Amino acid sequence: MPPFQIKFMPENRIIDADSGTSLLQAAAKAGIYIKSGCGGKGTCGACKVVVLSGDPLVTGTGNLTPDQISAGVRLACQTTIQGDLTIEVPPESRLQEHQVLMGDVQKGILQESGHDLLEKFGHHPLATKQRISLSAPTLTANTSDWARLQLELRRVLKAGDKPINIPLSILKNLPESLRKAKWDLSVTLTDTDTGLTVTHVEPGNDHPPYGFAIDIGTTTVVVYLINLLTGEIDDQQGSYNKQAKFGDDVISRIVYAVEDAEHLNEIQHTVIVTINDLIDKILARQSLTRYNVACAMIAGNTTMTQLFLGVDPRYIRLEPYIPTMTSVPSVPAKDIGLHMIPEALVHCYPSVASYVGGDIVAGTLVTDLANGEDIILFIDIGTNGEIVLGNQDWLVACACSAGPSFEGGGITFGMRAMPGAIERVIIDPDSLDVSLKVISNSLPVGICGSGLVDCVSKLLGAGIIDRAGNFQLGHHSGSERLRASSDDKEFVLAWAHQAGGEKDVVITENDVKNIIRAKGSIYAGIRSLLNMVAVDIEMISKIVIAGGFGNYLNVHDSVQIGLLPDLEPELFEFIGNASVKGARLALLSQNAWREAEELGRKMTYVELSVGATFMDEYVSALFLPHTDLSLFPSCQ
Amino acid sequence: MPPFQIKFMPENRIIDADSGTSLLQAAAKAGIYIKSGCGGKGTCGACKVVVLSGDPLVTGTGNLTPDQISAGVRLACQTTIQGDLTIEVPPESRLQEHQVLMGDVQKGILQESGHDLLEKFGHHPLATKQRISLSAPTLTANTSDWARLQLELRRVLKAGDKPINIPLSILKNLPESLRKAKWDLSVTLTDTDTGLTVTHVEPGNDHPPYGFAIDIGTTTVVVYLINLLTGEIDDQQGSYNKQAKFGDDVISRIVYAVEDAEHLNEIQHTVIVTINDLIDKILARQSLTRYNVACAMIAGNTTMTQLFLGVDPRYIRLEPYIPTMTSVPSVPAKDIGLHMIPEALVHCYPSVASYVGGDIVAGTLVTDLANGEDIILFIDIGTNGEIVLGNQDWLVACACSAGPSFEGGGITFGMRAMPGAIERVIIDPDSLDVSLKVISNSLPVGICGSGLVDCVSKLLGAGIIDRAGNFQLGHHSGSERLRASSDDKEFVLAWAHQAGGEKDVVITENDVKNIIRAKGSIYAGIRSLLNMVAVDIEMISKIVIAGGFGNYLNVHDSVQIGLLPDLEPELFEFIGNASVKGARLALLSQNAWREAEELGRKMTYVELSVGATFMDEYVSALFLPHTDLSLFPSCQ
Ligand code: FES
Ligand SMILES: [Mg+2]
Ligand SMILES: [Mg+2]
Repeated sequence: MPPFQIKFMPENRIIDADSGTSLLQAAAKAGIYIKSGCGGKGTCGACKVVVLSGDPLVTGTGNLTPDQISAGVRLACQTTIQGDLTIEVPPESRLQEHQVLMGDVQKGILQESGHDLLEKFGHHPLATKQRISLSAPTLTANTSDWARLQLELRRVLKAGDKPINIPLSILKNLPESLRKAKWDLSVTLTDTDTGLTVTHVEPGNDHPPYGFAIDIGTTTVVVYLINLLTGEIDDQQGSYNKQAKFGDDVISRIVYAVEDAEHLNEIQHTVIVTINDLIDKILARQSLTRYNVACAMIAGNTTMTQLFLGVDPRYIRLEPYIPTMTSVPSVPAKDIGLHMIPEALVHCYPSVASYVGGDIVAGTLVTDLANGEDIILFIDIGTNGEIVLGNQDWLVACACSAGPSFEGGGITFGMRAMPGAIERVIIDPDSLDVSLKVISNSLPVGICGSGLVDCVSKLLGAGIIDRAGNFQLGHHSGSERLRASSDDKEFVLAWAHQAGGEKDVVITENDVKNIIRAKGSIYAGIRSLLNMVAVDIEMISKIVIAGGFGNYLNVHDSVQIGLLPDLEPELFEFIGNASVKGARLALLSQNAWREAEELGRKMTYVELSVGATFMDEYVSALFLPHTDLSLFPSCQ
Repeated sequence: MPPFQIKFMPENRIIDADSGTSLLQAAAKAGIYIKSGCGGKGTCGACKVVVLSGDPLVTGTGNLTPDQISAGVRLACQTTIQGDLTIEVPPESRLQEHQVLMGDVQKGILQESGHDLLEKFGHHPLATKQRISLSAPTLTANTSDWARLQLELRRVLKAGDKPINIPLSILKNLPESLRKAKWDLSVTLTDTDTGLTVTHVEPGNDHPPYGFAIDIGTTTVVVYLINLLTGEIDDQQGSYNKQAKFGDDVISRIVYAVEDAEHLNEIQHTVIVTINDLIDKILARQSLTRYNVACAMIAGNTTMTQLFLGVDPRYIRLEPYIPTMTSVPSVPAKDIGLHMIPEALVHCYPSVASYVGGDIVAGTLVTDLANGEDIILFIDIGTNGEIVLGNQDWLVACACSAGPSFEGGGITFGMRAMPGAIERVIIDPDSLDVSLKVISNSLPVGICGSGLVDCVSKLLGAGIIDRAGNFQLGHHSGSERLRASSDDKEFVLAWAHQAGGEKDVVITENDVKNIIRAKGSIYAGIRSLLNMVAVDIEMISKIVIAGGFGNYLNVHDSVQIGLLPDLEPELFEFIGNASVKGARLALLSQNAWREAEELGRKMTYVELSVGATFMDEYVSALFLPHTDLSLFPSCQ
């Protein structure tokens, strides 16, 4: 059977696709990425498309209404090709490429808290580049090409008896490389504990060596271009993780990866493409080529790290939740296809356990948590919540499945912190009139994580919800913003005519319950860790918060809803994307990288599902702010 | 243009080939290997084929006679396809697969000279295999799969703080490997100075680990299967190096390799196929798979080593003769495609210079030359001659381009030491009647190296040639064995009716001159080395001779023709294929391998083309035995 022609609108893009291909796959083939929160199971309803012409095979309609169905709306994951088609992909179903907010990256690493960790660890990058001038061989000075180069490298790099290696791929063409360069060379090398390795030989030039610091988040991926000589971030680029088309969270990704022999390759390839697209943009903008980039450092959670390397993630989600590895072997870029020097090493931050990954170790390093007597609490709120507590003597860590609410997942109008996202809400307690602050001052189209925290706090303050999150439809204001919908109760934050979409932007009772569960989970995690090591909240001298919404989070509101412990606002510090900052630090400092690997080993992972503590704490935290109000004196 | 059909007889094998393909290439494509001593330049005449039907394009006829041409004989390298053809490939034009004579391999390494080097260096192989039993993980004992395995390996192998690594390819499937084996495993690892590396994980079993010791000669390739636990040679297989189709000597191979971008790959592939064919035979015979073989050690000359790894050999043959590398990085088998555990390491013996290679370093190691006060002379006579002189304090080495005469190359009836080869000759000085000793007591079809030495000595003794190698047609016997041919003079060793072929087996004046040049070159090399370090011949306490003909060489005759120095016969020792013995030793002993790498660095290479010494010595040695008879007192 010949392939069929599938046209995607409004791009007017036509691709060939075989019978049996789902519209989700076909769209990806056309370079159009459709949301699929449930990983293509037909349950999330995120992948709505409109069939404009043609007659596809519909295997399921999920939660589509009869009206939608008769208007031609279909679930892309539940609709397969059996002939030519024209399909419209509406904006709300698209994973949009956008500039991920990366925060105040140009500040030094933790310069915020008054000291520069790079200075502390020392600037000694994991790769180096050396201009080398050799004398040409003669009949009497006839050592081999590699021995000649190696000797001079040893002298110039003061390598002592550190081994200097050369991979076969470089050796193969070394004779021509040396002679074409007329013995005046630039040699790029990786430089690690086990030795130096030549990764590239080219005619002599004075370009600096670069490295990539990369944060692979479940939702977003960020790449920094680091000048290894100056340590500066010379460029940066972020985007969605294209793996989102296989599901929103790590569990759906794992399920997808292991359900078919080819899926693991596919899902690995997808994150590599995500990163390479970011790399290509940076290289083009900076007029660089892949041969300028001498190493990469990856920080990601355990699942993201395993998928990045194509390592079977199956047992991460099955009790007893065993990752394949915690310490990760460094691999040449060519083995995974990253756009950089093919022999350059790609290092990955070590994990602690299946649900405390390299991103958390990276964050712990930049938090400088393990270096004093003071007890520090580190919280990374991303698609999940991870918590580390400790000081120089001990470190404990846990993960709470907070779910993706704070990144906008599972919330009716939830979205990432990007233009159009509501980030602050003010509600007049009498009239229930609303004022909004929207990112980039755009028209409001949705609510981001910090906006949701704010919103719940204000709903509570205005008496719209009670401490259990129940909507009070009989509110004294009689405002029409507070209303029952077909199957829920909701509060209108922005009327359609003021909003960027076609509908009223609302927050529902169900949304509020989701937020309560998410914040309850994180707070219960904090309490469980504290109980575990018998530390009182008051003994914490600093709380460092990382994560996509960390830059904007309002401490007062967070305490009001019981997400964060009720401590003095001065004790809170926000460090944004700690993961990519940690990646940069380790790239620039061998001591930091050694410390990172040490940290990975030192951290004690606490499995919250063992014993009843966490569950008890969780149930107690399902109130605003908490059932035990004595924990929140400032809320009384 | 569609491809044409070329049929090869008597195989009746048909292949498709494009216009412009030479018959040499087409035959190779059909799996029929045709000799081509000159590397396809049309000068050696070795590639004769007969065109039975069709009309190919003939671009040269070399030394073919008009009779041959009218009978349809063509040079396969000078005949290209322009239509369908039927070609007969006569037996004498074929590179024949045969059992290479490998000598007394079952003796211990240098047990001959009274001590076992393996005992001296210690039995500690470069790879190991370990049965491991792990406890299954639980919620509270939840270290990662790799950490769990690594910990147990460290304990069982008593690895101390030696790093234990795992390549990504093994890690990818580690979870399933462990669980399918129900936590009872056999783990194969490489074990070198820099650490242990897991190369294979399989369900628990008690097979020993094996290694391959491989000698890559320019002409022949030999593979030993070594049981790494017992150190025994459990099997062996040898054959021609299939690269011979690109030329007989290293120079023609290099010329071929660099004349076209694809040729280096092709010539590398050819030796890999040669080795894999030998490996496959051994594995099938022993009922083993590639997963039983945990490491390989290669010994070959510098060119063979570079071609084996696909490393540009261009500058080996151009003054000042610079090899790409002397010390060789070890590579995983998968990178070059050898049939063994894909991640298992393939090690190559280091070279000293372009014309003193890893085979000589291997030979020097098994000679135990660098370990006493006595001065030892080591000579390896293969396609070239290499010489090492020294003791524990110093080592010098040189190479003489003796040419392939002693391996039968460039000699009218020259052949390798195999059934049908004349290896001993007795000539009655009065009647010139001949008695022959032929390998395997077959009918004589040619003369091998040791037979040639014998023959020249006996021709001289019988007065058939003078000391300059000139034939004395007026010999008093009047024997019709001594005769003029169309363009040369010759002596009949066996009449056609007594011989295995259709012609009289003869040795010509030209053959004798070739032998004199070859032996003169080797003797001049010995003398130059001795002069260089001011050592008298009498100070040599042992002469060790390796090489394809070394097992059979007659010391008396060798001295008579001036090939070997005139010393007491007891001082000579023959060790056969020292190269493969050295490969075995290094495979079985980390200390031996360390010593081998040290030897490579310690040897001083003497470039004979610098200065006039060698040329003077060479000219003096172009007599039988020498112009200076005082050097050969026993010949007077
Ligand atoms: S319903 Fe289609 S991806 Fe979730
Ligand atoms: Mg993150
Ligand atoms: Mg040899």
